[in-house]
Amino acid sequence: MKDTQFSDQSAGDTAIFERRESEVRSYCRGFPTVFTRAQGSTLTDSEGRDYIDFLSGCSSLNYGHNDPDMKSALLAHITDDGIAHGLDMYSTEKAAFLETFERLILSPRGWDHRIMMTGPTGTNAVEAAIKLARKVTGRRNVVAFTNGFHGMTLGALSLTGNAGKRAGAGVDLDHVTHMPYDGALGEDVDTLKIVEAMIENGSSGVDMPAAFVVEPVQGEGGLNAASEAWLKGLADLAKKHGILLIVDDIQAGIGRAGGFFSIDGMGIEPDMVTMAKSLSGFGLPFALVLVKPEHDIWKPAEHNGTFRGNTHAFVTARVALEKFWSDDAFYEQVQRKGEHLEARLDKMRRLIPGARLKGRGMMRGIDVGDGELAEAICARCFEQGLIIETSGAEDEVVKVLAPLTTPMEQFDRGLDILESAIREKTAGPIAAE
Amino acid sequence: MKDTQFSDQSAGDTAIFERRESEVRSYCRGFPTVFTRAQGSTLTDSEGRDYIDFLSGCSSLNYGHNDPDMKSALLAHITDDGIAHGLDMYSTEKAAFLETFERLILSPRGWDHRIMMTGPTGTNAVEAAIKLARKVTGRRNVVAFTNGFHGMTLGALSLTGNAGKRAGAGVDLDHVTHMPYDGALGEDVDTLKIVEAMIENGSSGVDMPAAFVVEPVQGEGGLNAASEAWLKGLADLAKKHGILLIVDDIQAGIGRAGGFFSIDGMGIEPDMVTMAKSLSGFGLPFALVLVKPEHDIWKPAEHNGTFRGNTHAFVTARVALEKFWSDDAFYEQVQRKGEHLEARLDKMRRLIPGARLKGRGMMRGIDVGDGELAEAICARCFEQGLIIETSGAEDEVVKVLAPLTTPMEQFDRGLDILESAIREKTAGPIAAE
Amino acid sequence: MKDTQFSDQSAGDTAIFERRESEVRSYCRGFPTVFTRAQGSTLTDSEGRDYIDFLSGCSSLNYGHNDPDMKSALLAHITDDGIAHGLDMYSTEKAAFLETFERLILSPRGWDHRIMMTGPTGTNAVEAAIKLARKVTGRRNVVAFTNGFHGMTLGALSLTGNAGKRAGAGVDLDHVTHMPYDGALGEDVDTLKIVEAMIENGSSGVDMPAAFVVEPVQGEGGLNAASEAWLKGLADLAKKHGILLIVDDIQAGIGRAGGFFSIDGMGIEPDMVTMAKSLSGFGLPFALVLVKPEHDIWKPAEHNGTFRGNTHAFVTARVALEKFWSDDAFYEQVQRKGEHLEARLDKMRRLIPGARLKGRGMMRGIDVGDGELAEAICARCFEQGLIIETSGAEDEVVKVLAPLTTPMEQFDRGLDILESAIREKTAGPIAAE
Amino acid sequence: MKDTQFSDQSAGDTAIFERRESEVRSYCRGFPTVFTRAQGSTLTDSEGRDYIDFLSGCSSLNYGHNDPDMKSALLAHITDDGIAHGLDMYSTEKAAFLETFERLILSPRGWDHRIMMTGPTGTNAVEAAIKLARKVTGRRNVVAFTNGFHGMTLGALSLTGNAGKRAGAGVDLDHVTHMPYDGALGEDVDTLKIVEAMIENGSSGVDMPAAFVVEPVQGEGGLNAASEAWLKGLADLAKKHGILLIVDDIQAGIGRAGGFFSIDGMGIEPDMVTMAKSLSGFGLPFALVLVKPEHDIWKPAEHNGTFRGNTHAFVTARVALEKFWSDDAFYEQVQRKGEHLEARLDKMRRLIPGARLKGRGMMRGIDVGDGELAEAICARCFEQGLIIETSGAEDEVVKVLAPLTTPMEQFDRGLDILESAIREKTAGPIAAE
Repeated sequence: MKDTQFSDQSAGDTAIFERRESEVRSYCRGFPTVFTRAQGSTLTDSEGRDYIDFLSGCSSLNYGHNDPDMKSALLAHITDDGIAHGLDMYSTEKAAFLETFERLILSPRGWDHRIMMTGPTGTNAVEAAIKLARKVTGRRNVVAFTNGFHGMTLGALSLTGNAGKRAGAGVDLDHVTHMPYDGALGEDVDTLKIVEAMIENGSSGVDMPAAFVVEPVQGEGGLNAASEAWLKGLADLAKKHGILLIVDDIQAGIGRAGGFFSIDGMGIEPDMVTMAKSLSGFGLPFALVLVKPEHDIWKPAEHNGTFRGNTHAFVTARVALEKFWSDDAFYEQVQRKGEHLEARLDKMRRLIPGARLKGRGMMRGIDVGDGELAEAICARCFEQGLIIETSGAEDEVVKVLAPLTTPMEQFDRGLDILESAIREKTAGPIAAE
Repeated sequence: MKDTQFSDQSAGDTAIFERRESEVRSYCRGFPTVFTRAQGSTLTDSEGRDYIDFLSGCSSLNYGHNDPDMKSALLAHITDDGIAHGLDMYSTEKAAFLETFERLILSPRGWDHRIMMTGPTGTNAVEAAIKLARKVTGRRNVVAFTNGFHGMTLGALSLTGNAGKRAGAGVDLDHVTHMPYDGALGEDVDTLKIVEAMIENGSSGVDMPAAFVVEPVQGEGGLNAASEAWLKGLADLAKKHGILLIVDDIQAGIGRAGGFFSIDGMGIEPDMVTMAKSLSGFGLPFALVLVKPEHDIWKPAEHNGTFRGNTHAFVTARVALEKFWSDDAFYEQVQRKGEHLEARLDKMRRLIPGARLKGRGMMRGIDVGDGELAEAICARCFEQGLIIETSGAEDEVVKVLAPLTTPMEQFDRGLDILESAIREKTAGPIAAE
Repeated sequence: MKDTQFSDQSAGDTAIFERRESEVRSYCRGFPTVFTRAQGSTLTDSEGRDYIDFLSGCSSLNYGHNDPDMKSALLAHITDDGIAHGLDMYSTEKAAFLETFERLILSPRGWDHRIMMTGPTGTNAVEAAIKLARKVTGRRNVVAFTNGFHGMTLGALSLTGNAGKRAGAGVDLDHVTHMPYDGALGEDVDTLKIVEAMIENGSSGVDMPAAFVVEPVQGEGGLNAASEAWLKGLADLAKKHGILLIVDDIQAGIGRAGGFFSIDGMGIEPDMVTMAKSLSGFGLPFALVLVKPEHDIWKPAEHNGTFRGNTHAFVTARVALEKFWSDDAFYEQVQRKGEHLEARLDKMRRLIPGARLKGRGMMRGIDVGDGELAEAICARCFEQGLIIETSGAEDEVVKVLAPLTTPMEQFDRGLDILESAIREKTAGPIAAE
Repeated sequence: MKDTQFSDQSAGDTAIFERRESEVRSYCRGFPTVFTRAQGSTLTDSEGRDYIDFLSGCSSLNYGHNDPDMKSALLAHITDDGIAHGLDMYSTEKAAFLETFERLILSPRGWDHRIMMTGPTGTNAVEAAIKLARKVTGRRNVVAFTNGFHGMTLGALSLTGNAGKRAGAGVDLDHVTHMPYDGALGEDVDTLKIVEAMIENGSSGVDMPAAFVVEPVQGEGGLNAASEAWLKGLADLAKKHGILLIVDDIQAGIGRAGGFFSIDGMGIEPDMVTMAKSLSGFGLPFALVLVKPEHDIWKPAEHNGTFRGNTHAFVTARVALEKFWSDDAFYEQVQRKGEHLEARLDKMRRLIPGARLKGRGMMRGIDVGDGELAEAICARCFEQGLIIETSGAEDEVVKVLAPLTTPMEQFDRGLDILESAIREKTAGPIAAE
């Protein structure tokens, strides 16, 4: 029985979008309503309907929508005619962000990385990182991994695995060698051995790379989580051959798949880390690259961009760091929430023959086997007031990316909707629950 | 005699930047003080000093800092828990922006372009545009022009002329043919003839291009302004060979070098226009590509990005359109201001042997012949409370990019500082004025 | 009235070719008969018909077929079990060739070039030359010219102008900038100025090249002959910027368009010269690159190939050098023959409205305005016993490449056939001659 | 005790080579004497010393030097003014070659391949093959294998594994994915599974290839022989995905590693086969590509070259086919000789700790573990009158490439010299033998 509350799927007038916005638009097609407000883990549309957000701007809203502390800091900043756009000039807000990042993030880890403000999107950060790696090493090849996703501008797209996205380039995507990610060849094949052999054989045809670019957990690629052993082995191989290790933590970082960094606790100190998405805390465009000081050999303005360093984002990002990362409380809470998520998903998985759990932390999902089923489940969830999406090469993974701050009660409500949709869309009759 | 007011050049504590920010930072090196507030055409530093802003975030702040109408709309939006980040889902703010853009910008020009929200930086827009041009035409080559600048990600960088910036790529920049811009070979050479000959000779070795990507006025390249005849000829040549005309109006657009578009009034209807910088009106990261409907053949999500469509920017951009482009008043005022600027610069030009005026509209400067002199002039201006920068291949052009809204009195005050700096830095004794 | 002697166009049994040889075969389509013997400037087919050869293996048979002195030397070499294949080991034949080349070619010009034996085709020589230029300079870009042709392997093809041939690559042809050749933009445009401006403008987008690769006369491109002033200017520009000048003399060299080198007497000493085609003198596969000693920085075997240095060709090439280049007699005879050719072609040119003379020396032709007419003329010549071909982007040039040794009587007989075919295929009635 | 007969290592006057030949020369450095004559498996230098040839022009002289039957046919051809150079026109010699190739090679295998005459070197054939594969499939990527070697022009070099050779390109080598060859990751890893997984995962980042280019036995790469199962699996995978299978039989073909083709008897019908080296039988430059008729979609002259189809080589190649491939006698004799070689090498292998046998047929060698030892062994052999070389990424394999026609007595004499050199250069004292 269809829930009447959400029966009119295209709430609000969407004619202007259909008339004027490019065909490239996408999420709006899965969630065909006009949103007006958002608070915490709740989005509200123009008809006044509330939706639980299990998408979180693809992990850009790890602290939820319009966090009150960030919001009031931003309002104060704007009210006081704080800088909105300052190129890369010095500002009090940038100073405060840098000091806070140094104090709460770098120092506790013993890291001495420099912070490079790039254009405020993930793909800009990735482009900057590979440029710098090539400059530092004098090498041109970069190793990326199967099912990896790093962005849509030409350099980042070269690193991306998906054939459809690659084809969009319209030109050849060069200077990148794609290697199998952990688990890509089945459980019993140690792909690190293959990477090692291809790198160390001087006649392999694989040019010695400037860098490994790796997501510790692959978001778009289907929530594949590399093991600690594999990541450490990759770091060791990198060090042995003067290859820079670039950790792309754009989706998995900032609490989503572990600590502030998704590799926290593994004993890995990457040469570079790319960050974006939840970095501003408030959903504002913001990205950066952490660079070990010995690699920070840029000449001034050698890589630039008009919007590098978004001042509004400095304000909210600083508040986010202070609020959530001053001690371990948030981290521990997220760990528990992740375990709860795992338990609930594991129960749902059993409803679908052949389904598998994917991911780690609060970045988890269920590989339901095919994209059609996954999309049907998500569509049903939307009807029931839950925003949730798929990922993976065939969109075969139903992906839970709830705000990390979602109250347990609301979190469970969202998971209930998901479970109910799975039951409905899979063979079995729904028992009396 | 040095002005004591600005003798301490590094106002505020900049240690955190030197310790923690990447060496790639640049504008802060020319303006070594910590800024705290900004209003209209005035920036204020932590010591309370005011600076007249003749840089405008490189044309990202054409309406000045913290315009009160945009500011109040943005404050209301945030206060009301408006969407901050909504991927490319439908929102009331996006609808309002699209409707306003359609009504005030597209309809009066008889244009039916679709609007593609790209990642919120100019380089993202350029990357999207050339991808689409290659997809539409099935061709791979793109023609860009000498001294052009289009961004720093790999695809956009391929279009960029500057050798130093190109070298930063660390890999070869392919699939682009660079042709001479209007005037690049001297006044007496019609470079359009060369472009035409290389395109039309089937044995020229220049593969038939997907697109011409052209800035009507080259910002970074030294304020070179192409003539209307040359631009129309290029448009005609494009049409004749099924080459798409992509106008990169990122720096010259939004009133800076003409009307809302820098080609307004020329009778050119480009296949695509890339926009960013002043598009949000408030300095917020925001970019888009206008695409003729017949070229809008994207598949959903074929090009995407987490921050495409910045909702805060929708709010301010809509207000900017309504406030400044509802009628011709602003346009006419800017034209007059541009003429005033030209007259004053022409007077200054005569102080420097061999100097030449560059640019058009409110995007003008003086080619002083060498970069050292230009930088000395800008440095002296900063000491006197004026923020102004150079451009050009050798940084040889002193570039005036004042907010278009700068009050005449303040505008003249800034120009006085510039004139005084020029007098001081050039041979001649400063007469009793 | 058709000449009955050649009415059966497909002499001999060609079924095996149609059944078994690839569709890529080409010359055989224009000359559909089976050849059996050849001597001097005469080819004989299986029906016993004789043809005058105005094609000369595309300038590979400048001394005609089966020159008796080369032939007897080669017969003696083979009879005596001389080396046929010796990789790049030392042999008496190679020593004799090197000594003769040094004595008759290098020393008289005061050149100290080293000789690099490449794979025995022109394209191999070109590939070796550009590899070495990139190694010497550390630069990657190479400048080639409109309408240039340098070979069909990937590196050489990148230098080639023709769109159809380029498309055959199936991949993008990178790292080459195509510039306008002398005269390519009309008589009144000094294209060297354009080359200079694009090279010297650091923001032109044209990366500083490793080399200019230039044919002094473009064979496939339509017999375009660069002026001495243009070539010297190019050489000067190269020297000024550390760009290597690579003269591709594969088709124009060895007497075809001047002296032994087509640039003889111009005061140019190229950094490298690529040679093939008539180098062996006998039509055997043989190619080499002359390299200034300071650029000969190859590591042993850094570029190699199984057939580099064809020992049979060493034998015939040495005889050719001794027979034709020991004094000026041959050169002077060829000059006179070239002048005769020019006079006769000039007369024919007047028969065709708008036709133009092309080329120089014994490398001349008539641009008849379109490819269809040119091919009709050549086809008619074949019927009359003359083998002659077209060149140019549109096959619009009827090209005379007779052996330089053709007796005057036979040369005029061939030219008579050509003139008669032109008269027949152009409007005018053929008068009683 | 040193053999006095060969004590003067640089026999003959080599000054002209040192003065005039490029530093790139290589084999002459290992065999520093001037050769004058050659017959069968014997080379003779200018001092009258004889050397047994275990190099065979890198497998270009599988029938030995100056085979009397080919020699007399070639002498007759030249004496009779047969065509030496005929572009790709029809000739009686080409017809005879095609008919013989069809009758003796294609028909018995039930193959209907077309024959494409390319420039007369292996690398030209490889370039043509990959161009055609890209044209046929409309794909751009090509898969090549670790330790593969396919030539030195830019397209073929892209397929080559060796880092040093690749670096010689001076530009990036694109559009090729290098995959592990059979055995490249150790005996227990089925590399075909990896190839399959990377091809079949649509998000692997490996673009669907136009072709697999594979040597059934890798000559330069260290005599690695792929198993029949692996090659058949590769052929099946190719067929499944519309990937063309290109067998590069340039070194392993024509009896060297099996039958006429190295894959004879495996039930594989490749889409293309590239052939060169011993194809002419006499050591003359000659190469071709076999193409399945459905892939022969070339337009006339779409790929060309001045020396495609060497008429002298047509003569000798035809004789070679008739003499050696009219029945199974030669094949069986070679098989037995290969088994004898294996047995003798296996005995030698035991003299060197850790040494391994490599290769198959008459293409075998010993991996002695390091290049220094291998080169010392070869140098000692040369002193003793045996010409033999190394191969492999580190030159670690002593490679026996004797003419297949070497008389058993001479073959054993050569092997005795090799065994003696191994004993001398390895630890153990040489017993009284």
